[in-house]
Amino acid sequence: MELREEVLKIAKQAKEAAQKLANLSSTAKNEALLRMAENLEARKDEIQEKNRRDIIFAEKKGLSRALIDRLTLNEKRITQMSDSLKEIAKLEDPVGRIESMWRRPNGLLIGRIRVPLGVIGIIYESRPNVTVDAAGLCLKAGNAVILRGGSEAINSNIALSDVLSEAIEEVGLPPGCAQLIKTTDRKAVEEMLKLDEYIDVIIPRGGESLIQMVTKNSTIPVIKHYKGVCHVYVDEEADLKMAEEIAFNAKVQRPGVCNAMETLLVNEKIADKFLPKMIQRFKDAGVEIRGDEITCRIDPNVKKATEEDWSTEYLGLILSVKVVSGIDEAIAHINRYGSHHSDAIVTKSYSRSRKFLQEVDSAAVYVNASTRFTDGGEFGLGAEIGISTQKLHARGPMGAGELTTTKFIVLGEGQVRQ
Amino acid sequence: MELREEVLKIAKQAKEAAQKLANLSSTAKNEALLRMAENLEARKDEIQEKNRRDIIFAEKKGLSRALIDRLTLNEKRITQMSDSLKEIAKLEDPVGRIESMWRRPNGLLIGRIRVPLGVIGIIYESRPNVTVDAAGLCLKAGNAVILRGGSEAINSNIALSDVLSEAIEEVGLPPGCAQLIKTTDRKAVEEMLKLDEYIDVIIPRGGESLIQMVTKNSTIPVIKHYKGVCHVYVDEEADLKMAEEIAFNAKVQRPGVCNAMETLLVNEKIADKFLPKMIQRFKDAGVEIRGDEITCRIDPNVKKATEEDWSTEYLGLILSVKVVSGIDEAIAHINRYGSHHSDAIVTKSYSRSRKFLQEVDSAAVYVNASTRFTDGGEFGLGAEIGISTQKLHARGPMGAGELTTTKFIVLGEGQVRQ
Repeated sequence: MELREEVLKIAKQAKEAAQKLANLSSTAKNEALLRMAENLEARKDEIQEKNRRDIIFAEKKGLSRALIDRLTLNEKRITQMSDSLKEIAKLEDPVGRIESMWRRPNGLLIGRIRVPLGVIGIIYESRPNVTVDAAGLCLKAGNAVILRGGSEAINSNIALSDVLSEAIEEVGLPPGCAQLIKTTDRKAVEEMLKLDEYIDVIIPRGGESLIQMVTKNSTIPVIKHYKGVCHVYVDEEADLKMAEEIAFNAKVQRPGVCNAMETLLVNEKIADKFLPKMIQRFKDAGVEIRGDEITCRIDPNVKKATEEDWSTEYLGLILSVKVVSGIDEAIAHINRYGSHHSDAIVTKSYSRSRKFLQEVDSAAVYVNASTRFTDGGEFGLGAEIGISTQKLHARGPMGAGELTTTKFIVLGEGQVRQ
Repeated sequence: MELREEVLKIAKQAKEAAQKLANLSSTAKNEALLRMAENLEARKDEIQEKNRRDIIFAEKKGLSRALIDRLTLNEKRITQMSDSLKEIAKLEDPVGRIESMWRRPNGLLIGRIRVPLGVIGIIYESRPNVTVDAAGLCLKAGNAVILRGGSEAINSNIALSDVLSEAIEEVGLPPGCAQLIKTTDRKAVEEMLKLDEYIDVIIPRGGESLIQMVTKNSTIPVIKHYKGVCHVYVDEEADLKMAEEIAFNAKVQRPGVCNAMETLLVNEKIADKFLPKMIQRFKDAGVEIRGDEITCRIDPNVKKATEEDWSTEYLGLILSVKVVSGIDEAIAHINRYGSHHSDAIVTKSYSRSRKFLQEVDSAAVYVNASTRFTDGGEFGLGAEIGISTQKLHARGPMGAGELTTTKFIVLGEGQVRQ
C-alpha cells in the first residue's frame, strides 16, 4: 500500500474508534487497561527478544551507553510498564465530569462537561515505555491514539503495540483505539501532520528539531513537550543550608531529565558566603561549573560561561552559575533565557516569594523546593503523558484530565432567543 | 521600514507590554477600559468620517448591501462599542484566580493559578467592532493584542485603533498593549504567523480560506473560529408546537450568524404531521427549503437538496431539511456533516435527550432550546471574542477567562526529591 494511503487508513480507523471510545463506560476502559497490563507480563520473553534486535542495531550504529540503556527493556522495566497501566486503571475517569452548571435568567441550565479530545497523535523518540504509557493514558481519557516512535526503537515498539492491540481486541474494542505507525519512513510523519480532518491533537515529545519540524508542518493543533532550562535562585534572605540542599538535588539527583536545574542564580549579597561551599559540593559530585565573571572571581578554577550556556539544556552534570544584583535581575534572566518549564526561589522573604510566584512566566514556579517535583505523579495528577511547555490548553505535567476537552450542554424547556 | 521589520517591531513591543500587563491590577486594567470607552464616545465624528472612506470604497467596489451594512459605523454602533468596553470593565478579572490548591504527602502545597496567555494575534474580516471588542477583552485578561483586520475596513480600524492607543497612553500603559497592523499587504499576515517567539496564540475569525491559510502557515498555536453548520433534530416524541418555535427561531431570528440553524432533521414517524405546517411557516418568512427525497415527497414544491447542501453554512434564508429514521441517524448526520458548533434535539424522551447530549460531538449541545443561544453573553460568560470550533484549549463561546492559561505554583519548606 502507498504510504499516504496507509497513514490515512490508520487515521480513519482511529476516528471511528474514537467515536466508540467517547461513549464507553469507565469500567470497560479499565478492563482494557488491565488486560493490556496482563498481556505485557505474559509476553515478556517475546518483547525482550524483539527489543534485543534494537539493542544490537544500536550497538552497531555506535549509539552511546546512555541511549542504549534508555532503549533496553529488561524484565523489571516491562513489569513497570504493566504496573503503570494498572495505576492508570485506578485513576478517576475525567470523562463525563460536569465542571460547572448554572441557571440563566431565562431558565436555561448551562453546563460544561468533560469529553475526550478525540484522536491524539503522539510523536516521540527513543524510550519504548512511552508506547505503553501514552496508549494507556489516551485510552483512559477516551481517546484513540496514533503512536509514532523513533526508528531506533522500532522493533520494541512493534512488539509492545502488538501486545496492546491483542488486548484491545480481546476485550472487544475496535483496533483503531491504539495504533502504531510501523514504517520508519520519515514521510509518514509529514502525511500524518496534514490529517486535520481525522486527528484532533498532535503531541511531539523530543528535541528541538523534532518540535520545529512538527510545528512547521502540522495543520493539526500541537501541544509541545519541549526542553527544560530550569533555574534555582538563591535570594539574599535564603536559608543557605536549605538553598544548598535544593540546588544540589535539582542538579544532581537525576540530571538527565527536563525538570533538573541547568542554571543557578545567586544574589550578590550572599554569593561570597554561599558559592565556595556549594561549588565544592558540586565538584565533588562530578558537576562541571560554568560561571559568569563574578563566579569566576569567587572561584578562579571555574570555567567562563558563554552566552549560549544560559539557554542550554545540558541534561547532564554541567551547571551554569550567575551572580545577580537582586530578584528583578533573576526574574528577567529566567524569563529571557529559560524555557518556561520549572523555576524556584529559595528565600525567607514573604514579599519576594510572592513577587517570584507572580512574575516568573513558567509552567511551574516554586518557593523553597526542588524543581525536580514537576511531574504528574509528584504533583498528584497520576501518570503523565509528558510536560507541556506551551501555554495553550495544558501547561506543565499533563495527566488524563489534560487529554480531554469540554463541551457545553444546554437544557431548556422550549426557550427561543428574542 | 521593511514589512518584516515592521511586523517584528510590533510583535516585540507586544511582548514587552504583555510582561507589564500580566502584573497589572484589575483596577488599572479597568481604568484603561473605561478611558477607551470615553474616548470612543468623544471622538465619534472623527471615527465616522474615516469610516465613510471605507463605505465609499466598498460602494465603488460593488460590495453587497449586507457587507456594507456590516462595515458601517453610525453613532449608535459607536455607542454600542463604548458600552461593550464598559461591560468588559465590570466583568470579574480572571487573572490570579487559584483554580485549586492541594497538599501533597510531603507537605508541598500545589496550586493552579490563572495567568494571561501573553500576546494574542487576532486576524479578522469586515466588522470593525471586532477591533474594539478584541482589544478590550484581551486587555481585561492581561494580554497584549495584535490586531489585523480586513482591508475593506482599514480606515475604520485605523481610526478606532488610534482612539484606543491614545487612551492606553493616557492611563500610562505601554503602546504595545493593543496594536493594529496598518498595512493591508497580505504578506504582513504571513510574517506575523512565523513570530512564535513573540506571539503566544493566533485567533483567526472568518471564512474557510482565511482559516486554512492561517493553520497552514502558522507556527504559533491557533484557536480557530470557523463556520457554524447547526442542526435541530425533531424527535418522534417532541412537543411539535415547541419544535416549530425552536426551529423557526433557530433559522429566522438572525440567519446571518454562525449559531443559526442550517439543517432541520425530522423523525420519519412525525414528518407527515410536522413538516407541512413547518415548511409553510418557513416559506411565509421567505425561507427557501431544500429537502431530501422524503421531504420532497411530502411537499412536491420543495427543491431537492444536493450532497453539498448538508455541509453548507448558508448564512441566509435557506434551509436544508432531511427526514431520518431515528436518533442514531440524526446523530450520525450531525457528527458527519455538521461543523461541531451548536446542535439541538427537541424531545420529551429522557433517554434520548441523554443520548443526544452524550453522543453529539459539538461545542454546544441543546435539549429543547434554540441554537441561537450559543453566545458569550447568553451563556453568562460576559462579552466574547468569538466562538471556538476547535477542541484544544477553548471550545464554544470564548470570554475573558478563555484568554488565560494556568501555571502551577509550588510552596515548599525545603523539600527535595528522593
